[in-house]
Amino acid sequence: MGQPIGVIDSGVGGLTVARELMRQLPKERFIYLGDTKRCPYGPRPEQEVRAFTWQMVRFLLAKDIKMLVIACNTATAFTLRELQRELPIPVIGVIEPGARAAIKASKNKRIGVIGTEGTIESKAYPNKLMSIDDEIRVNDLSCPPFVPMVEEGILTGDQALGIVERTLQPLKDMNHIDTLILGCTHYPLITPLIQQVMGESIQVISSGEETAREASLILAYHDALENRKEKPVHEFYTTGDLEKFRQIANNWFDEPVQVLEVVEIDGAKSSAY
Amino acid sequence: MGQPIGVIDSGVGGLTVARELMRQLPKERFIYLGDTKRCPYGPRPEQEVRAFTWQMVRFLLAKDIKMLVIACNTATAFTLRELQRELPIPVIGVIEPGARAAIKASKNKRIGVIGTEGTIESKAYPNKLMSIDDEIRVNDLSCPPFVPMVEEGILTGDQALGIVERTLQPLKDMNHIDTLILGCTHYPLITPLIQQVMGESIQVISSGEETAREASLILAYHDALENRKEKPVHEFYTTGDLEKFRQIANNWFDEPVQVLEVVEIDGAKSSAY
Repeated sequence: MGQPIGVIDSGVGGLTVARELMRQLPKERFIYLGDTKRCPYGPRPEQEVRAFTWQMVRFLLAKDIKMLVIACNTATAFTLRELQRELPIPVIGVIEPGARAAIKASKNKRIGVIGTEGTIESKAYPNKLMSIDDEIRVNDLSCPPFVPMVEEGILTGDQALGIVERTLQPLKDMNHIDTLILGCTHYPLITPLIQQVMGESIQVISSGEETAREASLILAYHDALENRKEKPVHEFYTTGDLEKFRQIANNWFDEPVQVLEVVEIDGAKSSAY
Repeated sequence: MGQPIGVIDSGVGGLTVARELMRQLPKERFIYLGDTKRCPYGPRPEQEVRAFTWQMVRFLLAKDIKMLVIACNTATAFTLRELQRELPIPVIGVIEPGARAAIKASKNKRIGVIGTEGTIESKAYPNKLMSIDDEIRVNDLSCPPFVPMVEEGILTGDQALGIVERTLQPLKDMNHIDTLILGCTHYPLITPLIQQVMGESIQVISSGEETAREASLILAYHDALENRKEKPVHEFYTTGDLEKFRQIANNWFDEPVQVLEVVEIDGAKSSAY
């Protein structure tokens, strides 16, 4: 059996990325780790996000992964370069795939980005977009209410719509963007609300789908695609509540999650690595 | 001034890929070579396509390119692996990006592919698609009339629509695909006709746009993206008629093509390399 692909996230948001990875790469085996206990990462200082991310990475490296996907925008913004430099395996984050897809999609070169405070303050998206094309103009906006709302399961209804409307108003006022990057892996769960508020003409880019495609390319490029015939058995780990995680995961995947464990990564286990 | 990116094609079809590359990578400098004199490659035997492609590659290697894009499906089908193995620079073709984009787009896992005789007979698309996902079902069809039609500039009107309708009929009869790959770089020029015949619900994948995005990723991955401020001056070369090439190129690009030369690659020049 070939080596698995590791996926890390601050919690359950990265499951949107994992689902796309499993759909676009059905022969690959995935190991997912969500740091639900310490979610959200968005408001945390850079040093803390980096420390937490390295704890997750060490846990997955011990499982002999062949590639690492950072399915969390905040962690990508603060650790991607460092991990690419330090790890002996390919590492991909969710920011660059989203940026490249937006450049492909935008006709007027005005791109919106929404994300957590950490991601937006890091300026990772504007920097990436403008490093590819100087003429791109970016309007970015942090949306602190969205992650708690999604974690609470408030995905539809008047209350949710009201929150999305009020939060996105500054972006609507600035206007003229034709493409909007969902710079947080929780946001695809409220895409219908975001689309409704921003208008049907705006192209909404989901980093999950894009990241899965780039993961596929990088594996092919390294000639590391899996070719097994039997169905892969994925593993899921959370640092938080098992039942809550299982419930959310089972809602998102067609088949029930088989292997699922609570792990501790901030204590003796991880420092013993 | 940084190194340029080389783009090769059997003729003018690859200009659709070049245009997308220039749009998505506006800081990069491109050198395009179209083997118009010997176009089309589609009906030629594999050995001949390989020999012609190597002649183009040698011409571009002498211009110190940092990456090679094979913007011709037939040449990609027959030479991609070989060129990736032999050349010291990254080589990307148009088939894998199209395949990956189709996998991302398709919901029912039934994908159509149209292309030249050479591309379709090579089974490069079905092989690639099914190597990623066993459950994908592919209906492919060669469309010999399309390249001559496009080269003649017949892109709209009843005559063109009639040709497209008759040619695609077998694919319509088999049916049930939800995604169609344009497996030839000439075909994006008749996308509206193809969409009209196949129906609006079919997602049409243009390899040009997809290849440009993957080129962007591979350059970023190798930390080889250009960062110059001045506008790049691209170079175009053809083995065929200069005026005809200039006319088509100027129709396709917003600004007139500046550097354009006729070159010989099948004679003394190429063998002297």
